[in-house]
Amino acid sequence: MPEFDLIDRIRQRAATREDVVLGIGDDAALLQPPAGKLLVVATDTLNAGVHFPGETAPADIGWKALAVNLSDLAAMAAEPAWCTLSLSLPDADERWIDGFLDGFLALAGQHRVALVGGDTTRGPLSVSVTVHGFVEPGRALRRDAARIGDDVWVSGTLGDAAAALEQWRSGASSDEALRARLDRPVPRIALGRALAGVARAGIDVSDGLLADLGHVCRASGAAAELDLESLPASEALQSAFAVPQRHALQAAGGDDYELCFTAPPDVLEDVQRVAAAVGTPVTWIGRIVEGEGVRVFDADGERWAPPRGGYEHFG
Amino acid sequence: MPEFDLIDRIRQRAATREDVVLGIGDDAALLQPPAGKLLVVATDTLNAGVHFPGETAPADIGWKALAVNLSDLAAMAAEPAWCTLSLSLPDADERWIDGFLDGFLALAGQHRVALVGGDTTRGPLSVSVTVHGFVEPGRALRRDAARIGDDVWVSGTLGDAAAALEQWRSGASSDEALRARLDRPVPRIALGRALAGVARAGIDVSDGLLADLGHVCRASGAAAELDLESLPASEALQSAFAVPQRHALQAAGGDDYELCFTAPPDVLEDVQRVAAAVGTPVTWIGRIVEGEGVRVFDADGERWAPPRGGYEHFG
Repeated sequence: MPEFDLIDRIRQRAATREDVVLGIGDDAALLQPPAGKLLVVATDTLNAGVHFPGETAPADIGWKALAVNLSDLAAMAAEPAWCTLSLSLPDADERWIDGFLDGFLALAGQHRVALVGGDTTRGPLSVSVTVHGFVEPGRALRRDAARIGDDVWVSGTLGDAAAALEQWRSGASSDEALRARLDRPVPRIALGRALAGVARAGIDVSDGLLADLGHVCRASGAAAELDLESLPASEALQSAFAVPQRHALQAAGGDDYELCFTAPPDVLEDVQRVAAAVGTPVTWIGRIVEGEGVRVFDADGERWAPPRGGYEHFG
Repeated sequence: MPEFDLIDRIRQRAATREDVVLGIGDDAALLQPPAGKLLVVATDTLNAGVHFPGETAPADIGWKALAVNLSDLAAMAAEPAWCTLSLSLPDADERWIDGFLDGFLALAGQHRVALVGGDTTRGPLSVSVTVHGFVEPGRALRRDAARIGDDVWVSGTLGDAAAALEQWRSGASSDEALRARLDRPVPRIALGRALAGVARAGIDVSDGLLADLGHVCRASGAAAELDLESLPASEALQSAFAVPQRHALQAAGGDDYELCFTAPPDVLEDVQRVAAAVGTPVTWIGRIVEGEGVRVFDADGERWAPPRGGYEHFG
């Protein structure tokens, strides 16, 4: 099955939008950006054996490859619009590509993202996606925008994806709810949009809360103090892992793709209101303070640190 | 050398532009598209062992990874602006990445392209680049824009890159001029821009003239008739390869990244004038006619076909 058939197969299934002047099938796509907004661009690649186990279902790989990219747009408060897909495959397998597109296009459809181009090449399984969105000038949730005194918030629950990976690694039967968090992460697009103009700094939790909030602190020239007991945990995580391992997964586990963001205390009610309006739970977990680094305190007010270093991706 | 050091290393060397509001180092880049223009987006991936021999110099890989993408913008008559880079590396080798950036950023600098984001991952060597540019509405050189009676033109010379690959494959010492065409293709950005509003259809010659012009014919619902003796050949190619192998390399060899374009006969002088103004040779090679497919005729007016099927990339 040569490259051109593959591209036709993708083109036939890809939806379009009215701002796509020319989509898949030429040397490049022609797109009409809206006036008065900034273009927001992110790229992320997933490699077999590094970012997902080799036996992952093609539909899950397709979903996740787009999800991790949309999560970057969410973390900028951007509205998604277009994406390109670069797919390296050991061999052109129709069933594999159809399954992959099932997952990829299901998520694209949820967010009205048009697949406008890309390429297919022969090589070890690797999926590289570039996403494009828009945000109003001055409203993006930049990493360098946290200020001393800001509250630190996180969406959803933490540690679920890392817990599923831990179960998979140990050979234990994996909990379905946890596994879904690992295989089908949900980018927090609606929350990101709702936080535009309300929150200050933002990042998505891909490498683990401590690592990712650490990026925000470094970029903002500040520190963060977190309350360990405030970190949100799903019921599935609480059933499957006892403290202290649960705490470690929540603080240092990656791949959750929740949003961690900061906002001044005087907009606390606004944060809760806009999050409720889009149906995404958010939890206060700490505060931005002077200094550097991220410090976590337990219920006794003692410094706490996860038993080992930051989260490592699968592989 | 962890991912974050690699990204810092890239960020320190990447140039910026005034329309980059936020570049490398956040979840996504924030960019200011110009008013009144279309955004032009292309993605191409190069895999080791598929698109280049494993022993290719890192600087050549860097150059070529950006060049093949810029060539797609040239084929749309677009002005390049920004790019993202997704780099999969078996291990994070400082010297390798520095060499890679030497080539990548040298070409980026020539065209004022800002590297605004991307990611680095562990995996088999693979380079995926997405480029962004602008074009005035209605002026892009689309594949579907060829019309019956158009002249067919090509820039530069054909077959040089394939000739170098042929020499490399056969173990012969490779001609330097030919090898440079394979390792350091020159995207025809200035010519593409000059042809906006003058030429009709356009494509870059990456898979071979017959295959690529075939895409134009299919998209435009037309055929092309080419004059074999008109296909331009470099002196290096003429010295190294005798007819008929030379003809086969010119007609079916890929990786030249010249522009093949069509234009109505009444702008023949305009084509020659704008090409001369940017210093890029262009050659008339045939005509768009009714029907389908690409037919080549030799000096005796006989149908000619290359001895074997279309060009296959290295590997």
